[in-house]
Amino acid sequence: MTLLTRINALLDATTTPLVASAHCDLPCGVYDPAQARIEAQSVKGCMEKYNASSDPDFKVRATIIKEERCELVKHHLWVLWTDYFKAPHFEKYPQLNSLFNEATKLAGAGGTKGSLDVAVADNLIARIDEIAEIFWETKKA
Amino acid sequence: MTLLTRINALLDATTTPLVASAHCDLPCGVYDPAQARIEAQSVKGCMEKYNASSDPDFKVRATIIKEERCELVKHHLWVLWTDYFKAPHFEKYPQLNSLFNEATKLAGAGGTKGSLDVAVADNLIARIDEIAEIFWETKKA
Amino acid sequence: MTLLTRINALLDATTTPLVASAHCDLPCGVYDPAQARIEAQSVKGCMEKYNASSDPDFKVRATIIKEERCELVKHHLWVLWTDYFKAPHFEKYPQLNSLFNEATKLAGAGGTKGSLDVAVADNLIARIDEIAEIFWETKKA
Amino acid sequence: MTLLTRINALLDATTTPLVASAHCDLPCGVYDPAQARIEAQSVKGCMEKYNASSDPDFKVRATIIKEERCELVKHHLWVLWTDYFKAPHFEKYPQLNSLFNEATKLAGAGGTKGSLDVAVADNLIARIDEIAEIFWETKKA
Amino acid sequence: MTLLTRINALLDATTTPLVASAHCDLPCGVYDPAQARIEAQSVKGCMEKYNASSDPDFKVRATIIKEERCELVKHHLWVLWTDYFKAPHFEKYPQLNSLFNEATKLAGAGGTKGSLDVAVADNLIARIDEIAEIFWETKKA
Amino acid sequence: MTLLTRINALLDATTTPLVASAHCDLPCGVYDPAQARIEAQSVKGCMEKYNASSDPDFKVRATIIKEERCELVKHHLWVLWTDYFKAPHFEKYPQLNSLFNEATKLAGAGGTKGSLDVAVADNLIARIDEIAEIFWETKKA
Repeated sequence: MTLLTRINALLDATTTPLVASAHCDLPCGVYDPAQARIEAQSVKGCMEKYNASSDPDFKVRATIIKEERCELVKHHLWVLWTDYFKAPHFEKYPQLNSLFNEATKLAGAGGTKGSLDVAVADNLIARIDEIAEIFWETKKA
Repeated sequence: MTLLTRINALLDATTTPLVASAHCDLPCGVYDPAQARIEAQSVKGCMEKYNASSDPDFKVRATIIKEERCELVKHHLWVLWTDYFKAPHFEKYPQLNSLFNEATKLAGAGGTKGSLDVAVADNLIARIDEIAEIFWETKKA
Repeated sequence: MTLLTRINALLDATTTPLVASAHCDLPCGVYDPAQARIEAQSVKGCMEKYNASSDPDFKVRATIIKEERCELVKHHLWVLWTDYFKAPHFEKYPQLNSLFNEATKLAGAGGTKGSLDVAVADNLIARIDEIAEIFWETKKA
Repeated sequence: MTLLTRINALLDATTTPLVASAHCDLPCGVYDPAQARIEAQSVKGCMEKYNASSDPDFKVRATIIKEERCELVKHHLWVLWTDYFKAPHFEKYPQLNSLFNEATKLAGAGGTKGSLDVAVADNLIARIDEIAEIFWETKKA
Repeated sequence: MTLLTRINALLDATTTPLVASAHCDLPCGVYDPAQARIEAQSVKGCMEKYNASSDPDFKVRATIIKEERCELVKHHLWVLWTDYFKAPHFEKYPQLNSLFNEATKLAGAGGTKGSLDVAVADNLIARIDEIAEIFWETKKA
Repeated sequence: MTLLTRINALLDATTTPLVASAHCDLPCGVYDPAQARIEAQSVKGCMEKYNASSDPDFKVRATIIKEERCELVKHHLWVLWTDYFKAPHFEKYPQLNSLFNEATKLAGAGGTKGSLDVAVADNLIARIDEIAEIFWETKKA
């Protein structure tokens, strides 16, 4: 989601019921793709700091924390896929299932868990942004 | 998965590389739908004990624990969907995405989290068994 | 933080290095008060749904989940207080310590954990917004 | 537990009340040593992948995940020891206490946590199988 | 452990290498039965507050938290049983296995998880104190 | 807190209501700085064992566990700061906020998380002891 898109989403939010986010499975009705995006940004930050360091102990710490943050990305995306998106959404956006499956794979062993290449993290963030665009469209609908 | 199916799967396993299960995102290569099923059985057990009890404190405890176990069902299924199943599986089994989406929804607020009806738990278990049948077929392939 | 403030913050962000957030204690350099705010919104949502329901089992679930989400609010705020804010910030904003102490208390037993009054959640959100305003000011500095 | 033993246990299960497993301390009445075994298989998988790899980052990830999975083995075994087994079982199987103590030690620092030798994981799995055999005997009784 | 016993233990500690505690399975060499005792005290506090309250929402919160704290008691005791105590301890204190098994059961469904009677919590604390006495004896040995 | 201080605190406790500790946010009324101290001792133990070892795999394990234990130190301190200490304490002990902020920073990336120097752990323990002295004074008041 570009900055402009996000600002638009926020402006849209002022004329529709507040849509900040929604995420627990009461459900509380508050979901926000920002949760996954913040963790993905953190994953990228861990990679950058890992690559910039020559301290083996720091690199181990970066790897531990990257692993945790990748898991959180996956969790936040899974919650959106199962708890927020409903049958009509999947009909309107037929790519949703593969988008989520690929995004969560990108946060896993074949993606940011198993890589230290920031390009992989950028791909993950781009996928989350695609999900966020659809998410905010459905909130406006 | 019927008992017969499971026995067949186990017998098949004797003539193919051991396929016990696989579940962490190293990945370690060990996945097993039994993890989700055990938790779903527990969800059902919590419902049965809730319904059989007239002690309000016990009912609160049953609700707390059921909530946790439902979350574990969702987690184990999400792991299979993202980590185990690959593109060729989704091509061969086009129902996989909706099967997992519905099964995880069945373990959530609109399913066993929000219900005390054992029929809902039985539906969840049946869906897990459908997933397990596909899973074991892919392990034999 | 008002919507206008947030938009301003986002616009500011386009002319300064990207400041999305930062939150793990590598540290990855990504912090965002939105994490605490999303959980606080969820706390409010749980209260609203609790108050609108007459189903005792649902009310127990709402209480369980509200408790968890309050804990997450506290955790995200503690991380900002310890990991993000440094000595110069505390000098420039002498109210920071009590602001954080009160905000985390507001998410606890004397606040949203122990209450089902949405006004308490609104107070918590307002405190988080005060913290966010300071946070984004420091990011621009 | 050999494959044959497991099949027998499953067949036995068809003529007695379903005994799939039991594990939460409501208790829900569902316990299954398979939970510990799946994690132990994962521990072994982590060791194998560690030993087969020459990528130091991958080895760190394998070590992190192995540590987690060892802890899960210990947890599942502790639950069986405290929650499932009762005084009459300890009378009938006087080796139970040391069997559990040794099995949980084998999943710890002196065992699979502190080793990358698959033979240690095999010893752990063998101990879990001994426990499983006793477990299934008690379920039939 | 009586206050006097604890003071004696502390005084003993001044003439032997510091033995504060030990508890992670590196192992770091720091174990302390105080961890289990603090949680058991909390369990008792939750019961007392539950019994003194007539607010149903507070009682639900007390039940949620008591459940968590009971689980922590069990965990801390399991760690001592598996990680701290070695074969020579079990030989010297043949009651250790049943003492731990009974103490962890007392923190479970048949004990403080399933009860709101402070006498049950007092029994649990007494058992932890018996374990602590043995623990501190072994530290001096 | 010196050993003598602790013994005095315990002796004081015999003539005042029992003050063992208090830590959950029911609140149960049981808080004890010993929880943070035990984890800090463990952090120091992990450092010592790391420094004494030449096994790279063991060093990774020590780093993983140290990271976890540091996080627990932070958590236990945050709980005391928010849940136990009230406005009158902050008035009487104006250094409390910075003491807690520095102590939690000392358990983080700029302290024991990011260092393997036992002197850093000793500083952390000393800060916890300062907190403990104030804590026990307030309990006597």
